[in-house]
Amino acid sequence: MALPMTSEDLLGPRLVTPSLPEGLDTPAVVIDLDVLEANIEAMAQAMAARGVALRPHFKTPKMIEVARRQLAAGSSGLTCATVGEAEVLADAGVNDVFIAYPVWPSGARALRLRALCDRIDLKVGVDSAAAAQALARAVARPVRVLVEIDCGDRRTGVPPEHAGVIAAAAADAGLTVQGVFTHGGQGYAPGERSRQAAEEEVAALQRAAAALQACGLPAGTVSAGSTPTAVLSARGVVTEERPGTYVFGDRQQVVIGSCRPQDIAAVIASTVVSTAVSGQFVLDAGAKTIGKDRPPWLPGHGAIPAYPQAVISRVSDHHAVCEVPDGARRPRVGEVVAVVPNHICPVVNLATEVVVARRGQQITRWTVDARAHNT
Amino acid sequence: MALPMTSEDLLGPRLVTPSLPEGLDTPAVVIDLDVLEANIEAMAQAMAARGVALRPHFKTPKMIEVARRQLAAGSSGLTCATVGEAEVLADAGVNDVFIAYPVWPSGARALRLRALCDRIDLKVGVDSAAAAQALARAVARPVRVLVEIDCGDRRTGVPPEHAGVIAAAAADAGLTVQGVFTHGGQGYAPGERSRQAAEEEVAALQRAAAALQACGLPAGTVSAGSTPTAVLSARGVVTEERPGTYVFGDRQQVVIGSCRPQDIAAVIASTVVSTAVSGQFVLDAGAKTIGKDRPPWLPGHGAIPAYPQAVISRVSDHHAVCEVPDGARRPRVGEVVAVVPNHICPVVNLATEVVVARRGQQITRWTVDARAHNT
Repeated sequence: MALPMTSEDLLGPRLVTPSLPEGLDTPAVVIDLDVLEANIEAMAQAMAARGVALRPHFKTPKMIEVARRQLAAGSSGLTCATVGEAEVLADAGVNDVFIAYPVWPSGARALRLRALCDRIDLKVGVDSAAAAQALARAVARPVRVLVEIDCGDRRTGVPPEHAGVIAAAAADAGLTVQGVFTHGGQGYAPGERSRQAAEEEVAALQRAAAALQACGLPAGTVSAGSTPTAVLSARGVVTEERPGTYVFGDRQQVVIGSCRPQDIAAVIASTVVSTAVSGQFVLDAGAKTIGKDRPPWLPGHGAIPAYPQAVISRVSDHHAVCEVPDGARRPRVGEVVAVVPNHICPVVNLATEVVVARRGQQITRWTVDARAHNT
Repeated sequence: MALPMTSEDLLGPRLVTPSLPEGLDTPAVVIDLDVLEANIEAMAQAMAARGVALRPHFKTPKMIEVARRQLAAGSSGLTCATVGEAEVLADAGVNDVFIAYPVWPSGARALRLRALCDRIDLKVGVDSAAAAQALARAVARPVRVLVEIDCGDRRTGVPPEHAGVIAAAAADAGLTVQGVFTHGGQGYAPGERSRQAAEEEVAALQRAAAALQACGLPAGTVSAGSTPTAVLSARGVVTEERPGTYVFGDRQQVVIGSCRPQDIAAVIASTVVSTAVSGQFVLDAGAKTIGKDRPPWLPGHGAIPAYPQAVISRVSDHHAVCEVPDGARRPRVGEVVAVVPNHICPVVNLATEVVVARRGQQITRWTVDARAHNT
């Protein structure tokens, strides 16, 4: 799947220029519903073919309209990062939610967690005995927990061999140990890195499941997940995958090789507001719309498929400065262009609602229901 | 005003550790109302002493409660970046608003601009004849415009000598030319850069005003502005300053030297959720809360005054990874710490509401009224 890494690819000429609805107030996030539905179906089929449960991460779409389609396509439940996101899902009638995060339950959050446990089948991540004990006090019932392990991303999670200690502490505190989970975030890089990360996820989970087993706590759920690694894991260990970004795709995923250019379901419609400074044009989609995510292996803050030689070299709150080499084609002031963001997750979270289109025609708008539900 | 640039300063030991209200659901933006009011008063007095009108930029606070206090302290009106922000101000009864942005009026935005002109004294930025003509068609009345010039930031705005051509085109299209404006964004750097930028603003505005004069269009308003340059401009040319960030301050402004550590009015309360990976701790304030702004001259994605040796080396959507050197003090899991963001503008825009406190006691919450009003 990996694309060749020439500078041409990085600058985006392989990306598809989408048709945008006319008359949009820009900047606007525009979702291609046909592509979105195809992405949902393709991942569901890929996971079904592997016999693995698919629990998509809600932190990417944050929209109930998307979650409903994922569940209708056969997802076993949903993943989220915060209690606030889980509340949005519960309010929408989603019953099976895993907060794949080492939640610290204090203050109002403790009460909210307890209320959630009364309403839905909630599972919560833990990576310390202290958090497990605090969770048990907060919810006062045997809520199901998964122990987070670190498979090489060095963010959260204990070493696989320590999973048994945390699981035992959770069980002692009165919680129900459901299994182990990890996130191979180190796979967000081009080349062979995502394949290696998928192997690291599986190897670490295998060791962690064994560590639980040694404590007499079998891991019913062995959960891995990221969009780059979800389709690459070896069979037999992982019981569940939790990809999020696949639902929209983005420039980063294309360069990593985990989605194709035609799989990008979300772009930003943006107007050229200035061509006054030589060698560049300026878009109205600034950092408050396209974010500031720029991995070191991608030039610029997004790609403009219609003007592949333009590099979004700088973004401030309401401006994106796009440098164009001498002689290259460039848009005129007032023109609306589509920007493919580097990373779609923060882009959706910055929007209040999105425009939903089919074949370039706007058909509706969706609210970003869980936008900024960070607590 | 400039602080010495040792690595100690950059890591934040000079920053003040604020008292946070108890029992917050984290992550949360916490405003110290005493400091906020002092910042508003200090800038108002500084501008009054210089005989310059103060038109604070609304894109930083985006909260009517802040705007009201700025107007009460003597601001002549407010600046904003988008038609959507101007609508929020108009809805709150603010009558004098300048959209300091080269607005492209098409589609629904054209109608919205026209409606705004019926309600308030609106001024709009232009940096092309095409935009001036489109604006005239959209609003169908002699709305007041200011010509944007580039003073060295290379973002938007024509060269000062071209200001007359744009002004003449605007006048020919039926608009009222009110003056010229610029933004010395190149002053966002430590050392002498902000003082130089203030000089560049003044020199460029002087040339632009002369270019208008040569076309028989005197510049009634000569508007400069950024927090680093606002207090540094030479007297006599500039009639108006448009700083935004001063109202809260941030880590970047402290290092630039344009606010003191004790002037920081906004921090992020965040909980330590994991200490599982060696050499670090992880906060629940990730990129969806503290943003990703990191100028090359600042280490990390924010500062933690209580743990000055911790470097926020990496942020993902809901995690901030804070590296701590061996032997340095570090917080325990569950502890709540205050983070001083690198750049406050995107932080406020990511929040739905903020906690308002005096002397560490929560007194109210304010809605971020113009959050995500990007169109």
